[in-house]
Amino acid sequence: MSNGSGTASGKIRVAVWNEYMDEQKRDTVTCHYPQGLHAVIADFLNREEDISAKASLIGDPEQGLAESVLQNTDVLVWWGHVHHGDVQDNLAQRVIEHVQGGMGIIFLHSAHKSKPFTRLLGTDGYLSWREAEEKCRVWTVAPAHPIAAGIPESFVIEHEEMYSEPFGVPDPKTTVFISWFKGGNVFRSGLTFERGFGKIFYFQPGHETYPNYHNEYVRKVIVNAVRWAKPQLRIGVRDCPRVDPLEW
Amino acid sequence: MSNGSGTASGKIRVAVWNEYMDEQKRDTVTCHYPQGLHAVIADFLNREEDISAKASLIGDPEQGLAESVLQNTDVLVWWGHVHHGDVQDNLAQRVIEHVQGGMGIIFLHSAHKSKPFTRLLGTDGYLSWREAEEKCRVWTVAPAHPIAAGIPESFVIEHEEMYSEPFGVPDPKTTVFISWFKGGNVFRSGLTFERGFGKIFYFQPGHETYPNYHNEYVRKVIVNAVRWAKPQLRIGVRDCPRVDPLEW
Amino acid sequence: MSNGSGTASGKIRVAVWNEYMDEQKRDTVTCHYPQGLHAVIADFLNREEDISAKASLIGDPEQGLAESVLQNTDVLVWWGHVHHGDVQDNLAQRVIEHVQGGMGIIFLHSAHKSKPFTRLLGTDGYLSWREAEEKCRVWTVAPAHPIAAGIPESFVIEHEEMYSEPFGVPDPKTTVFISWFKGGNVFRSGLTFERGFGKIFYFQPGHETYPNYHNEYVRKVIVNAVRWAKPQLRIGVRDCPRVDPLEW
Amino acid sequence: MSNGSGTASGKIRVAVWNEYMDEQKRDTVTCHYPQGLHAVIADFLNREEDISAKASLIGDPEQGLAESVLQNTDVLVWWGHVHHGDVQDNLAQRVIEHVQGGMGIIFLHSAHKSKPFTRLLGTDGYLSWREAEEKCRVWTVAPAHPIAAGIPESFVIEHEEMYSEPFGVPDPKTTVFISWFKGGNVFRSGLTFERGFGKIFYFQPGHETYPNYHNEYVRKVIVNAVRWAKPQLRIGVRDCPRVDPLEW
Repeated sequence: MSNGSGTASGKIRVAVWNEYMDEQKRDTVTCHYPQGLHAVIADFLNREEDISAKASLIGDPEQGLAESVLQNTDVLVWWGHVHHGDVQDNLAQRVIEHVQGGMGIIFLHSAHKSKPFTRLLGTDGYLSWREAEEKCRVWTVAPAHPIAAGIPESFVIEHEEMYSEPFGVPDPKTTVFISWFKGGNVFRSGLTFERGFGKIFYFQPGHETYPNYHNEYVRKVIVNAVRWAKPQLRIGVRDCPRVDPLEW
Repeated sequence: MSNGSGTASGKIRVAVWNEYMDEQKRDTVTCHYPQGLHAVIADFLNREEDISAKASLIGDPEQGLAESVLQNTDVLVWWGHVHHGDVQDNLAQRVIEHVQGGMGIIFLHSAHKSKPFTRLLGTDGYLSWREAEEKCRVWTVAPAHPIAAGIPESFVIEHEEMYSEPFGVPDPKTTVFISWFKGGNVFRSGLTFERGFGKIFYFQPGHETYPNYHNEYVRKVIVNAVRWAKPQLRIGVRDCPRVDPLEW
Repeated sequence: MSNGSGTASGKIRVAVWNEYMDEQKRDTVTCHYPQGLHAVIADFLNREEDISAKASLIGDPEQGLAESVLQNTDVLVWWGHVHHGDVQDNLAQRVIEHVQGGMGIIFLHSAHKSKPFTRLLGTDGYLSWREAEEKCRVWTVAPAHPIAAGIPESFVIEHEEMYSEPFGVPDPKTTVFISWFKGGNVFRSGLTFERGFGKIFYFQPGHETYPNYHNEYVRKVIVNAVRWAKPQLRIGVRDCPRVDPLEW
Repeated sequence: MSNGSGTASGKIRVAVWNEYMDEQKRDTVTCHYPQGLHAVIADFLNREEDISAKASLIGDPEQGLAESVLQNTDVLVWWGHVHHGDVQDNLAQRVIEHVQGGMGIIFLHSAHKSKPFTRLLGTDGYLSWREAEEKCRVWTVAPAHPIAAGIPESFVIEHEEMYSEPFGVPDPKTTVFISWFKGGNVFRSGLTFERGFGKIFYFQPGHETYPNYHNEYVRKVIVNAVRWAKPQLRIGVRDCPRVDPLEW
């Protein structure tokens, strides 16, 4: 067992995982994210003195999920969509084992259907959706939670893809945010979970054709979540040991 | 210890508690509830073959909360508003003890500030509100929960008093419903809790100047909740016993 | 969507899944379970008027997990141990999808390392253990839960394999039982979870070399759990639908 | 709203509340706690660089719970037993309101029957007990929780008053510790809860006739709990505000 801060600098080491394939290189996305969503996310994280973020892409060796990458990651941020099915099962399992061992993970937006998300939570990732240039208002349901630090009672996102309840996830540890959509829907948009030694946060905003990772509150939530998800302890894969009696 | 179905008939015995003081006898209320909200609620409950409901009013002996009333009640439905402070502390405590002993309780609408609600949950009952002839859409977040049986994915209430997050309650056992309000707010409008042997359900709809206890889905939710909250076991007030060792 | 009681008889349809391979045909096991653990479990379930149980073995077609089997199962009882790794991934996934769709599942004893258990809960199934002819006392922590109906405050199992905390599972919905072991250990031995529309119960007793599925309270817990886990609703695998605005 | 660290020094301000009446001045107690349990607890807390603790006694003005005391307390540690009933209702309510507003609170041992505990949790505080010079082993169920930092998988307390399940509390936020007692009982001995903006920790060890607040692990748990319970935000008593529509 070791504690989770591994760098000489003591910074929280973040890997921002993304697909960054053809779809994300279309004009509707590059107008907001010229070098990809991951680049913008890593950039605003790196503006924090206590965070050191870099990108990890599906096109990298071992799909950006090499053992050496994960061992040196305190918190993994996951953005995926059209290539969920292409992530190799053994690499998804590796991510899951690192989370169980203490690595934090933040699932953004469409990551609700990714292999690590559905397999850590035992969910099918069900929700309803539409893309309609739709106004969204994010409500802070748990104002005293560290992830809500500095976030107002509610904030507006001018356009976001609508995600609607019922959301097929198990009971969260804490419901931090619930979103209102102009078209009549609601969605539990900020949820924490725990699995093994690892902390998990799901956050809904971040459709690729809207500039929402430039929104100051969306950024603040993700920064807060990185700090919250930092491992308290970090362990490796473990077997069930046979133990002797302590009393007799 | 005994099981909770006490009548010869085997029906679930419900007491519908209400203030029914001056405020509820104004034209804006009596147009919807000529004999009071409690009368309408007890009436639709009594249409169910397995439920036997009667009213219990703050003007009754011991404010409608006599020991003999509570001992013969499986599920207490509570509607209160302007007279929360008038409920005597010892009677509120009696209700709490019956819930701890297994009696179910359903808190409707403004009961979020009642003594039994705030003291069972340890909450100040905080929320924001407005009366604005406002459209409300209730979303079913937990479709497999017994309280959601027969309730669609969402249903509309044309006018309801708006209640908004943040709602100052502790983590619910299950979030069954979340409401969308036209004016931009969301609210966890159907929540279950457990205290001692008793089951608790809070349900937001039911402002006195709107006819919402005539809404078929609101009624169905309350009927479902009565069945769900029926005691599995019923016990009396208990002290902490001294016990002998079982092994040595 | 349909409700879960599918037989003409209206009985709860249970499949008791077991490995029943070489290990379970050794003398140390057959002295207690001559036709296998599954036979004894199915037998005591079938003594209940509202339950119809049959066995499903890893040696059956599609490892006892054919689509036709699961579609006609309300509650799956799972006992597995040395062949966890032999269960095919696609069949484990089929079980998971049926649970998400509403099928109840009861994991017994060493099933904490089975593929359906670890993948539904996102756990590595960690615990410590020993086989030492050890006395176990099961404590009822949630006496008003339906699974504890008729179970005393505590009951003794003369010999059980010791399983110890820390148990690497996520927060349960309800902790129903906690076990005391003579050798100094404790274990959360009865835990409920929910995933999708399905209810999950884990119950620790049942090592194959002890006669514990002949214990009256162990049997009663499993009977209670079958009734509790019966689906409220049953749905199939679902995609995330695009939906139109409801308001605008 | 303000954040919770109020001293110029930035230390966590702890008040250790105790009765310290006749019972605690008997030889069986003073042999372990010559100046009272509170003195020993405040002393080991004050050895931590980031904590500043002082005592607050039932014999002090306003029973040690003056508004000025609570406003300058980040975390209240509560040890009470024979004088639970003597704490004035309005002062218990003041404590509750400060917890709802963000003050952390740690309930030790027999505080399970104190007014602040039972009223924050809505519990009757039920448990069984015996005094029998009994060996207790505390198991760490949530090893990655901050309150378990530095605590081994289990540790022994040579003599502790036995407290047994069933413990009549509502579902905890996290079950951190479960205790094994030689006489055959188990008890969820370390539990977290949240109410409003405040964090709550209950910890079982600490019977007055045993020297258990001198135990290094018991001390470490309490130190960890103080750090964990420090307010993220601190607010005052609040009414439910009427708010205008945000959208229309």
